[in-house]
Amino acid sequence: MTERGELAGPPTAVAEPWRDPSRPVGERVAALLAAMTLEEKTAQLCSVWMGATATDGDMAPHQHELLDEPDWPQLIRNGLGQITRPFGTAPIGPADGAAALAALQAEIVAASRLGIPAVAHEECLTGFLTWQATVYPTPLAWGAAFDPELVETMAGQIGGAMRAVGVHQGLAPVVDVARDLRWGRVEETIGEDPYLVGTIGAAYVRGLESTGVVATLKHFVGYSASRAGRNFGPVSVGPREIADVLLPPFEMALRDGGARSVMAAYVELDGVPVTADAAVLTTLLRDELGFTGTVVSDYFGLAHLRMLHRVADGDAEVAALALTAGIDTELPGIRNYGPPLVEAVRSGLVPESLVDRAVTRVLTQKCELGLLDPDWKPAPPPGTPDLDPPEARALARRLAEESIVLCANDGVLPLAPDARIALCGPLADDAAGMLGCYTFPRHVGPHHPGLPLGVVIPTLAEALGRTAIPGCTIDGDEEPDIADAADADVIVAVLGDRSGIFGIGTSGEGCDVPDLRLPGRQGELLERLIATGRPVVLVLLSGRPYALGAYADRLAAIVQGFFPGEEGGPAVADVLTGAVCPSGRLPVSMPVGPGGQPATYLTPTLGHRSDVSTVDPTPLFPFGHGLSYTTFEWTAPESGTVTIAADGEAVASVTVRNTGERAGSEIVQLYLHDPVSQVTQPVRRLIGYARVPLVPGEARTVTFTVPADLTAFTGREGRRIVEPGEIELLIAASSEDVRHTARFTIAGPERALGPDRRMTSTVTITA
Amino acid sequence: MTERGELAGPPTAVAEPWRDPSRPVGERVAALLAAMTLEEKTAQLCSVWMGATATDGDMAPHQHELLDEPDWPQLIRNGLGQITRPFGTAPIGPADGAAALAALQAEIVAASRLGIPAVAHEECLTGFLTWQATVYPTPLAWGAAFDPELVETMAGQIGGAMRAVGVHQGLAPVVDVARDLRWGRVEETIGEDPYLVGTIGAAYVRGLESTGVVATLKHFVGYSASRAGRNFGPVSVGPREIADVLLPPFEMALRDGGARSVMAAYVELDGVPVTADAAVLTTLLRDELGFTGTVVSDYFGLAHLRMLHRVADGDAEVAALALTAGIDTELPGIRNYGPPLVEAVRSGLVPESLVDRAVTRVLTQKCELGLLDPDWKPAPPPGTPDLDPPEARALARRLAEESIVLCANDGVLPLAPDARIALCGPLADDAAGMLGCYTFPRHVGPHHPGLPLGVVIPTLAEALGRTAIPGCTIDGDEEPDIADAADADVIVAVLGDRSGIFGIGTSGEGCDVPDLRLPGRQGELLERLIATGRPVVLVLLSGRPYALGAYADRLAAIVQGFFPGEEGGPAVADVLTGAVCPSGRLPVSMPVGPGGQPATYLTPTLGHRSDVSTVDPTPLFPFGHGLSYTTFEWTAPESGTVTIAADGEAVASVTVRNTGERAGSEIVQLYLHDPVSQVTQPVRRLIGYARVPLVPGEARTVTFTVPADLTAFTGREGRRIVEPGEIELLIAASSEDVRHTARFTIAGPERALGPDRRMTSTVTITA
Repeated sequence: MTERGELAGPPTAVAEPWRDPSRPVGERVAALLAAMTLEEKTAQLCSVWMGATATDGDMAPHQHELLDEPDWPQLIRNGLGQITRPFGTAPIGPADGAAALAALQAEIVAASRLGIPAVAHEECLTGFLTWQATVYPTPLAWGAAFDPELVETMAGQIGGAMRAVGVHQGLAPVVDVARDLRWGRVEETIGEDPYLVGTIGAAYVRGLESTGVVATLKHFVGYSASRAGRNFGPVSVGPREIADVLLPPFEMALRDGGARSVMAAYVELDGVPVTADAAVLTTLLRDELGFTGTVVSDYFGLAHLRMLHRVADGDAEVAALALTAGIDTELPGIRNYGPPLVEAVRSGLVPESLVDRAVTRVLTQKCELGLLDPDWKPAPPPGTPDLDPPEARALARRLAEESIVLCANDGVLPLAPDARIALCGPLADDAAGMLGCYTFPRHVGPHHPGLPLGVVIPTLAEALGRTAIPGCTIDGDEEPDIADAADADVIVAVLGDRSGIFGIGTSGEGCDVPDLRLPGRQGELLERLIATGRPVVLVLLSGRPYALGAYADRLAAIVQGFFPGEEGGPAVADVLTGAVCPSGRLPVSMPVGPGGQPATYLTPTLGHRSDVSTVDPTPLFPFGHGLSYTTFEWTAPESGTVTIAADGEAVASVTVRNTGERAGSEIVQLYLHDPVSQVTQPVRRLIGYARVPLVPGEARTVTFTVPADLTAFTGREGRRIVEPGEIELLIAASSEDVRHTARFTIAGPERALGPDRRMTSTVTITA
Repeated sequence: MTERGELAGPPTAVAEPWRDPSRPVGERVAALLAAMTLEEKTAQLCSVWMGATATDGDMAPHQHELLDEPDWPQLIRNGLGQITRPFGTAPIGPADGAAALAALQAEIVAASRLGIPAVAHEECLTGFLTWQATVYPTPLAWGAAFDPELVETMAGQIGGAMRAVGVHQGLAPVVDVARDLRWGRVEETIGEDPYLVGTIGAAYVRGLESTGVVATLKHFVGYSASRAGRNFGPVSVGPREIADVLLPPFEMALRDGGARSVMAAYVELDGVPVTADAAVLTTLLRDELGFTGTVVSDYFGLAHLRMLHRVADGDAEVAALALTAGIDTELPGIRNYGPPLVEAVRSGLVPESLVDRAVTRVLTQKCELGLLDPDWKPAPPPGTPDLDPPEARALARRLAEESIVLCANDGVLPLAPDARIALCGPLADDAAGMLGCYTFPRHVGPHHPGLPLGVVIPTLAEALGRTAIPGCTIDGDEEPDIADAADADVIVAVLGDRSGIFGIGTSGEGCDVPDLRLPGRQGELLERLIATGRPVVLVLLSGRPYALGAYADRLAAIVQGFFPGEEGGPAVADVLTGAVCPSGRLPVSMPVGPGGQPATYLTPTLGHRSDVSTVDPTPLFPFGHGLSYTTFEWTAPESGTVTIAADGEAVASVTVRNTGERAGSEIVQLYLHDPVSQVTQPVRRLIGYARVPLVPGEARTVTFTVPADLTAFTGREGRRIVEPGEIELLIAASSEDVRHTARFTIAGPERALGPDRRMTSTVTITA
């Protein structure tokens, strides 16, 4: 859809200053605001979920009751801020979708006095959430790939597809840091390390924003830390953990990515719901971090203030609370920012100036998107856009390949070409099993079980050209059946999750678990397969790690894939056969046992067995772990302790040589260890990484330049500081596999940092 | 030992003003301080663990390396602040112990220039931690009894026993609020509700302090909230949760109890170790709460600053950090407050004024204890003190009886007199299984397996006069064996924990668990017993609740006892036979499944099944639940909504009648529900309770007078406020079994409260 720059009809009303593209944005927005009634203003803060009614749509049961069903012409007579799910929820092709959206926009423009189009937003977690669009690997797989450039390219493709059919804003990426693996949305995170999440998240934002589509950072802030990993649960957290663990990815995605929208988290932090918290949404986000874009609520997040958090007594009070906090747009619906907000202003509950503040932000974004320009006209693109072109599929394939983690291998992999293979398990021949949450077929699937997939999704069995026996279902309780698996030379057991939402699935939004046992009776299936005595290769295609400690010693190999997307089947197949040399690394620790959550490798103390507790938190496979089919030799220069200034840089390098007989990529990781500091610090935390492809015999030198800023933490006084003293940079193949240590002394005095601090190290790779 | 008031010898050196009892304490302490060298001062801040060496003593492995082994005469030449474990760790009778302690004190007095005796401290969690002293039920059982008066009486007996043999300070009670049932020290807490913990904890303090023994509140603050329930783990917590959940029991025990000492928690709160945190130990504890007593470190808590938290670089730095924060006494040892503190002062790392501050507090307490008086003379008591007299055993028995919770009963209980009973399970005939952590036989037992018990502890089997088959061990992995249990009319399965410390046990300090499955193979044993088809009565004697959801439907009855102490066997037996009518109530929720921790009934939202998460947190038996052998009828007057002032009181009453045929006690509970407030609130929280004994046909009226102060919470601005608006007082038989609701409106304006706020409701019981 052409929205800007192309004259789609005769110019209209350029006499109105706010339509005049020659004037500065601020002036246009101010002029428009001055011309608006209160009802027209509040309409700009609302959104409508197209096609959703209280009995339909891809919503959770608890959401239906939250939907109003407004009369459409009545609703849009004052305009409309946003359109939610613009193509509706039925499977509709891109041409029809774009045409329908254009017609909708025409209606909105025609029905209202001012004729301002809506911003159309859609989910884009694993790709543009619409039928027939490419389904990429889930974000946890992006984390496993350790390849921000590839994620940026992917996001550019996603944005291009959205832009082509008239969508302006994408509700991604999720830059929450995984804190408790039981949480259903772990698959939507990029991992458990803020640096990894921040660098990959920022790359996604750059890619999406490069197409003109507004990226929306989710979920500001703290959602992933809900108690016991239960969705919407209260968050016990203090300001230091927020600042040092949960916030940095948002800062990176805002500053290094340029995200123009932020979604408020559903949760409460230490008793105050974020949606009602000006300290978070205004003081922190805008005053401290300098954000100037729009803040949208999470879906029905406003209603939760009344129904879940019980901090407001009615819709008008909800509206006043959220507006005061800094929520600019209610997603979706008009329940609070519709008539109740008008009432709140008229009754003096909230000043109109706060409405103006929000409307100004919304209109500024619309102006920047060209929606206020005189030549704007909704026009579907010519022909039928291909939302899953070959280049997108190739990207999906490459990202899937890079994300597969070979956790363990006794030599059985790659599979011998002549091996007789028994392919078993509920994910072995399951296209949907490749796909994460917020994927069109999966997202809608549970509500429309008969829905055809929008794209061709080869299963692992198809990719291997083999038949498979499921053995059991993903989460059912029927007796596992291993049929004649024992007749094979090797058994490949493909287990894992079904991603879904709100209870229909074993992973995904609302699909939390009390512990990390394999879902359903898959553990029993695995036991039976192991009992055959044949070597068993476990392929886990899941949204979170599961406890494999009970099986690991008896498995020939363990391959972990995090919902690898529409090309996941061939990607996993190629790793198994050796056509692809595995290069993924775990973005989350893989635990030994099912209990003991929350636990991540960032713990300041006690990451391993100790005398003080009978619980041993040592992971089965640590953060950053992954094997290859080739071998690498690491060499680094030895040096004494180097002193750097508190605003200086530390440099550490390593040379990696492929000493095996296959081409492969090594992931060189850099961790910080701070031996003594004024507040407790993680024993290690990631501060740099590089993906290094090497053909046999090839060597490359990876040099990390680390600004002292990266050693900063929130000190006793609550300020982020670079503290003088010793630090160690650990060049490592995983968080537990340190190959070289470089020691530095940061010279005094202590240095306080602002939000403009440097947040990334620089990597150079030389032959 | 007579330490005061009795002339034990000729007055010495009354010429020294600090020995003159006619002068004010402050003047005496100032005079003494002025007379002391720096070495003499720091010696007053140290303690020595008697008899402990790096290869012996009842310490955890990680503690041995922390012990210095000072040369005794060298050590005490400057005096000594405290004696740790004054009777040593070998079983020594009270007469010998008192004599040895007196001799030790004489040495200390003689060896030093100023001749100041040491404060002797000992643990007293479940009684005076010495051989032959009464072992009472564990604190979680005190919570289950809902009987503060009885706990106060018990503590008075404990204090009397300690005082009699020369011990001045007791390291109890633990007033941490249980937050994660996986934590090994849950058995040491009084429960998961701050009001219950605070009222019972304050009662214990009153009892102990009434004897002149200094009570020590553990562990200020936040220890129970360590991540994943792992001992010493980091605590993610914000200031509101600290103020509204973790702090109130300390406030109650200080103000309503009069505790004169506080022990600093091992943990870090949001990155800052408490032992190094002046904001906690000085600003909060002293400036805000007005505490004037002594603050002691937890054992080796200072060394942890260097070794665990890594916030200090050496012993002198540790000493400076801890002293600045507000730690007055290092327990135990001289590693940091010995020579390193002298060095820290001499090198300017910490001002001597902070040494003086701590020494002044220590000497003030010594002065108040009579240790500076001219007539003080260590003298063992005449004869052999009986540390387990009949009246103490009777107290232990009564508290055990009141603490047994009948969770479920299909009518099988009380056992029919003529029933053929099979008594099974590893706790059925196990005296040690009655005892909690910090009990002499259990505490020392693991290190001295052959040690005789200090007191006679009848097992359940002995109390029932029956033989028992263990079926399996508590935590071993051998095959369970149910022998001929199927031949009985009823099977009584006695399962549970072995309390221990640091990994030797299934509950107790350091004995954390990753989930709440029954220990060892006891779950399998239970399954086999159920499979016999005979009715199975489960008796769980444990330090924490376990997940019984998988069995509950198939059990005839469930009886929960929390380590009931030396009289636990007869107490449980009497409940089973009906000689005692059960009246305990759960002080912690009992979960359905083993995962899902942390979870308590105080969650502001989602305490039950909801659409937003697949995890159902509904407990199997809720907080406050417990059945009886008799029946009670509850009647309450209906009334409309009553308006009260923000500094007023709400009154609610209920009449309870025993409508059954046995005498029994009902526990009437009062909960607060605040429908809407400015920050999230627990759906319900306890604000009052009463134990009401009733003979058949008898009725009593319980009237709660609730100060509006009890509705207070920490508001958005960080102040504790009474918020105007609606509240509901729920008169209930458990947190889930509300019998009557009384509605009130608190009139405006909002009222800010200080630490002098009222913290308890008043209960009157009339016939």
